[in-house]
Amino acid sequence: MNHLNKEAIAEGMNSLQKYICDRLEQIDGVSLFNNDEWSRAEGGGGVTKIIQNGGVIEKGGVAFSAVHGPVTEMMQKQMNIGGTEFFATGVSIVLHPHNPHIPIIHMNVRYFELNDGTFWFGGGIDLTPHFIVESQAKLFHEGLKAICDKYNVNFYPKFKNWADDYFFIPHRNETRGIGGIFFDHLTIEDANLSKEEIFNFCIELGQNFPILYNQQVELGKNLPFTENEIQWRNLRRGRYVEFNLVNDRGTKFGLVSNGRTESILMSLPANASWEYNFQPEENSKEKQTLNLLKKGHSWIGN
Amino acid sequence: MNHLNKEAIAEGMNSLQKYICDRLEQIDGVSLFNNDEWSRAEGGGGVTKIIQNGGVIEKGGVAFSAVHGPVTEMMQKQMNIGGTEFFATGVSIVLHPHNPHIPIIHMNVRYFELNDGTFWFGGGIDLTPHFIVESQAKLFHEGLKAICDKYNVNFYPKFKNWADDYFFIPHRNETRGIGGIFFDHLTIEDANLSKEEIFNFCIELGQNFPILYNQQVELGKNLPFTENEIQWRNLRRGRYVEFNLVNDRGTKFGLVSNGRTESILMSLPANASWEYNFQPEENSKEKQTLNLLKKGHSWIGN
Repeated sequence: MNHLNKEAIAEGMNSLQKYICDRLEQIDGVSLFNNDEWSRAEGGGGVTKIIQNGGVIEKGGVAFSAVHGPVTEMMQKQMNIGGTEFFATGVSIVLHPHNPHIPIIHMNVRYFELNDGTFWFGGGIDLTPHFIVESQAKLFHEGLKAICDKYNVNFYPKFKNWADDYFFIPHRNETRGIGGIFFDHLTIEDANLSKEEIFNFCIELGQNFPILYNQQVELGKNLPFTENEIQWRNLRRGRYVEFNLVNDRGTKFGLVSNGRTESILMSLPANASWEYNFQPEENSKEKQTLNLLKKGHSWIGN
Repeated sequence: MNHLNKEAIAEGMNSLQKYICDRLEQIDGVSLFNNDEWSRAEGGGGVTKIIQNGGVIEKGGVAFSAVHGPVTEMMQKQMNIGGTEFFATGVSIVLHPHNPHIPIIHMNVRYFELNDGTFWFGGGIDLTPHFIVESQAKLFHEGLKAICDKYNVNFYPKFKNWADDYFFIPHRNETRGIGGIFFDHLTIEDANLSKEEIFNFCIELGQNFPILYNQQVELGKNLPFTENEIQWRNLRRGRYVEFNLVNDRGTKFGLVSNGRTESILMSLPANASWEYNFQPEENSKEKQTLNLLKKGHSWIGN
């Protein structure tokens, strides 16, 4: 269907950014997003929306971009693609809350097309609790499964495992958090859906993002916390930094391909800590969390 | 000369670690190093010495290792080497002080040999002031030049430029600090020195490390500092984390080659901060520091 061209998809992504930021401002209750608009010499640009020192969110960003230009040698090598001109648009989010009992969350939906006629979608949502509460992890995964199942019942099991593999820190042998879903290079053949349906799936994921996060915020935001729990939160943030800078393919690709550094690194927390060889006490909540940071754990039962 | 075999070099490196830690404990005046001994399944091991919450040093490490084993496919690819068995030994140091007026410092000296008979040395020392003071930068570079000149007058200019190129953060378009010296794959042909002389150069660099750092510590440790200066220190530490996790070839190689994660990441600070698109005020000390984080600056005059 020709009406769902790249301009319409970019417009949908741009609207999604606004929709999510409005909802997140309500959830936060204190701070508003600041806009940082930028353009790219090679073509296109974006708006990075940043929230800081909020009632719930200490530092977070919701970024929209729609960029285009010639396919570089680096893109050919890293993405294994044909075509000479590309177009890419998407929304990506990372939120770092103050309260250690509220998880860090990440979301991304994106669309990519080439002038050889090929196109695909990608995306993911994953949750990084500082302290894993299994009932909350279940709620989050059930929410994702419900959205996936509306489009293709194979999506959740496939994309859940993909998230386990993607959001993994090899040098720590631990997952970044409780995972979620991740998908890349999703074509109409892979999805067995029309272009419109895949696009709607991405938009619906995005529209559900504030709902899914609000569930987590409501369950954590009134819980008191100690200095030790803040220190543990900061150590977990340190692992988040490690994943993003060492392992995240999107971040690495952005940095080496001369992307906009501040927008790419909006994912980093206001602060993070490292302590040499820190080992939590046996049977502590911290140790229980570490023990659950494994691939292949079913959060919604079997 | 056969007496300078790999065992003798490893012993020299091990003694250097002890020598430096003794001197650093005197400089710190409060904390002592803790030993973390480890061994490696494939062969060899090391001792990572960590100092925390000291009088001067907030977090620092001095690591010795001597490892050996089969040359892996990854090593062949990344290092472009022959031989089937390797031996590597060295000492590496990173110190993060409390006081923002004392610089972060890094040093590394290392020896590598293959069973095809080839061997080489590598190393470097570089300084990362949170606030650059040109007279202190001059003192540091003059100290390095004096050591280099004793061995080969080409070393300082060559290794100074190499450090500018190596300790560079492309995605920020800034150097990590004021540089220092860096060299890799230094053979007797490159150095026009005997194996003993290159080894002595490495050891002399190491023995001068506490002297060079003490000069910086003495000039900064009694200066008062503000909360804003602590926040700036933490933002600069953020850049240090970015360099080490994104750009430092040693760190990346260590992590992907299944090295000992805690020892590799001892280089990370106790805490670091990120603030979206932080811009220091014009003519501030912070802005003056940023303006000096450029390659090719001569710190000792022409």
